Amino acid sequence: ALSSGWRRYCAAAATPTGDAVGEFRRRIRVAEVKGGEDQGAAWVGKELTVRGWVRTCRAQRTVTFVEVNDGSCLSNMQCVLTPETEGYGQIDSINTGASVLVEGVVASSQGVKQKVELKVSKIIVIGESDPTSFPIQKKRASREFLRTVAHLRPRTNTFGAVARVRNALAYATHKFFQDSGFIWVSSPIITASDCEGAGEQFYVTTLLSNSAEGGCLVNSIPSKDGRVDWSQDFFCKPAFLTVSGQLNGETYASALSDIYTFGPTFRAENSNTSRHLAEFWMIEPELAFADLNDDMACASAYLQYVVKYILENCKEDMDFFDTWVEKGIIDRLNNVAEKNFVQMSYSDAIKLLIGSNKKFEFPVKWGLDLQSEHERYITEVAFGGSPVIIRDYPKEIKAFYMRQNDDGKTVAAMDLLVPRVGELIGGSQREERLDYLEARLDESNLNKDSYWWYLDLRRYGSVPHAGFGLGFERLVQFATGIDNIRDAIPFPRVPGSAEF
Amino acid sequence: ALSSGWRRYCAAAATPTGDAVGEFRRRIRVAEVKGGEDQGAAWVGKELTVRGWVRTCRAQRTVTFVEVNDGSCLSNMQCVLTPETEGYGQIDSINTGASVLVEGVVASSQGVKQKVELKVSKIIVIGESDPTSFPIQKKRASREFLRTVAHLRPRTNTFGAVARVRNALAYATHKFFQDSGFIWVSSPIITASDCEGAGEQFYVTTLLSNSAEGGCLVNSIPSKDGRVDWSQDFFCKPAFLTVSGQLNGETYASALSDIYTFGPTFRAENSNTSRHLAEFWMIEPELAFADLNDDMACASAYLQYVVKYILENCKEDMDFFDTWVEKGIIDRLNNVAEKNFVQMSYSDAIKLLIGSNKKFEFPVKWGLDLQSEHERYITEVAFGGSPVIIRDYPKEIKAFYMRQNDDGKTVAAMDLLVPRVGELIGGSQREERLDYLEARLDESNLNKDSYWWYLDLRRYGSVPHAGFGLGFERLVQFATGIDNIRDAIPFPRVPGSAEF
Repeated sequence: ALSSGWRRYCAAAATPTGDAVGEFRRRIRVAEVKGGEDQGAAWVGKELTVRGWVRTCRAQRTVTFVEVNDGSCLSNMQCVLTPETEGYGQIDSINTGASVLVEGVVASSQGVKQKVELKVSKIIVIGESDPTSFPIQKKRASREFLRTVAHLRPRTNTFGAVARVRNALAYATHKFFQDSGFIWVSSPIITASDCEGAGEQFYVTTLLSNSAEGGCLVNSIPSKDGRVDWSQDFFCKPAFLTVSGQLNGETYASALSDIYTFGPTFRAENSNTSRHLAEFWMIEPELAFADLNDDMACASAYLQYVVKYILENCKEDMDFFDTWVEKGIIDRLNNVAEKNFVQMSYSDAIKLLIGSNKKFEFPVKWGLDLQSEHERYITEVAFGGSPVIIRDYPKEIKAFYMRQNDDGKTVAAMDLLVPRVGELIGGSQREERLDYLEARLDESNLNKDSYWWYLDLRRYGSVPHAGFGLGFERLVQFATGIDNIRDAIPFPRVPGSAEF
Repeated sequence: ALSSGWRRYCAAAATPTGDAVGEFRRRIRVAEVKGGEDQGAAWVGKELTVRGWVRTCRAQRTVTFVEVNDGSCLSNMQCVLTPETEGYGQIDSINTGASVLVEGVVASSQGVKQKVELKVSKIIVIGESDPTSFPIQKKRASREFLRTVAHLRPRTNTFGAVARVRNALAYATHKFFQDSGFIWVSSPIITASDCEGAGEQFYVTTLLSNSAEGGCLVNSIPSKDGRVDWSQDFFCKPAFLTVSGQLNGETYASALSDIYTFGPTFRAENSNTSRHLAEFWMIEPELAFADLNDDMACASAYLQYVVKYILENCKEDMDFFDTWVEKGIIDRLNNVAEKNFVQMSYSDAIKLLIGSNKKFEFPVKWGLDLQSEHERYITEVAFGGSPVIIRDYPKEIKAFYMRQNDDGKTVAAMDLLVPRVGELIGGSQREERLDYLEARLDESNLNKDSYWWYLDLRRYGSVPHAGFGLGFERLVQFATGIDNIRDAIPFPRVPGSAEF
């Protein structure tokens, strides 16, 4: 559905093939015109070309208003067409979803919704959009439906805004760590290391060939004595998708001091909830020569930085979320950006919960893990919307690598709780003492030989170190108010679905 | 191997647990002291604490020189100990690989290798390192050996420098695209979409349970009529690791205008070469309302930007590579940063190669793909070290989604060739015309139904668009001179090996 007008336009504008590669020119985007303090007033009288997709087209008696969005911001450019506009004859093709190129002059708008509009001298419909079949019409579609057209949903206000805020959070993450001297390390995605524990991991294999007519014959899977012969697999032993880059990250922190990972991680967990994905991105910083206090301070500073960053750089999108997705989200985030984070021990948190005399669904007792209802009570009620860090958890409910405290009962672990979401960040000081770590591996029935390289870090120049992990899509939920985590990532992977 | 002195130091320095989380304080790193123009001269007379790992320890009659590296830069801090230094009694523990904390005053150095050194008032050995077993001793170890201790190799000069330059290239990549208004999009890693073509892909599955004693019983794999029953797999059909995020990226470019992906991709290719990895990171920008000329201009500007970035921001590491890894690499990169990139058509390239009268191993003939020897001849010999873009390849040797040129024989594809490496970037304008694209799918024996969502982009508001892909580890090789791609990523995955 490409128009012949566009073909002619291209032919006229084509650059002749020369010897030198041309200069990379940035085009003016709607965000640059309308995104400033003056909402575009400085552009009045200037010529402008906009390329984008039609959101709506309203024909009035003498003029036609076409709202064009180029994805650079939530705002459309209101384009005003008259019968004198070159290309006005294509008016029947200017439907929702069509792509257009419009040239004109920026003018003050009399509308209440925008300061400026474009008086169009020329319009070209580039790619048409059949109004009877285009799935994303003007009226609001349900989020469930939009997941079935994940290839088109970024053309809606909500998903465009989520994509831009997600991008800003990712870039702010890199900026924060880079400005603080951290090195980005890519931890491996596929791992045949025995360190990760086999539960809820995806296998990665080349043994299942689907090439036979009708599917993969079980008989054709390489085997020995009735068992799968892993020696014939690509990596010559069972291999998995990683569940965390932490242990690998520790190796680089033990050489470069401070590092962070930012990459995908996986859980083959059969949970169909609004908080779980089979594939999600994680940020895992690791600080050398650091204890739990340094770790908490870093996590707090990081979270405040990225929250401030989107409040300052994504104003229009955040206003949209505040109006349409979660009323009050900007206040909630301002609280996080400005309030001092509170810390308390797990033991004190248990006392606080028991003392609250509130009825919880799950029991509250020293030695049991905190549930989401407990976490939300602490941050939302007890501390009135302030983020709270709970530290020094019982060692039995935490991972083997966390550093044992002097009381022999707790470990230097911390969870950062925020209103509405509960746990957003989990971290710990790592056990850097070889003897303690080996004892914990034994207690946890883990095979020390598998951890030879992890233990080497404690054999050669061991240092106190600490780190934390943050699920990036949880952060996107927290920052946008989006309920379902499947709407916080472009193409969600969940049980039964890995489409697109 | 943690010393009791360190325990006492920590106890004395411990922050009392209070209500508020402490401030995140950045520590001074060696790079900040020695990395400036004056190489640290402004620090003379100031107090400084360094935390890092001992590279060497040389005892002379009255003083002992300890070289301490904290990973922030290639340079060590030369630390000068005397018998008066507090902690001098631990001198026997100050071995290569040990971690230390040193406090002292910066002084001018009489050595020729550095402007400043640290007169140490106090040293604490934090973690010892047994000199008889520490695998990374002072003498140079082979790269092959270092791959077997990938958890320790970042403590060497070469791998520390590679890690820092790799980090700088990644950050420069984000900066370039963000400053140009591109949105980072995370394309999916696991895909059950039929679009990717089954060749050389890894399966992702939960059907192979290894939990049975002695391994995975073939009989226990869910099956139906002797064939693997995919309906019982996690995603209810065969799922794979992605080989490219391009098609997904196109969906977001068709909504947000310009996007880029930067994430891991996979090939289950059984090639044990110095140029192939089973897991590697790719950068794939996609530009809407763009043709091949825009694409070439963007690729050239991007490459020049990241090369300039490391030449300016990683001077010390680049000097190291120039001296020890590839003589002349800085000149080679300066050429790339400053020279105009040349473009020529595939047809002209064939004429050039035939006209050269040079004997090549592989045949040169219109219709055959260019081999590495041809590519290197063009960029290194014919154009004297200038990067060259070859465009408009025969459609038979290129992918189905590339835009057909008006000659009916070629497509708007481009390969960017650089000296020494050959092809570094490959891209194309995408076929945005529905009828042409469907015809190409038919010609290529691909199932149109599988591509329904990709074709939708051409049904609803189709726009001319173009993009390219760049293997990030190839870029690291190109920018550091490192021969083997296994040394350009922290934990390489290749046939038979996914350790650590």
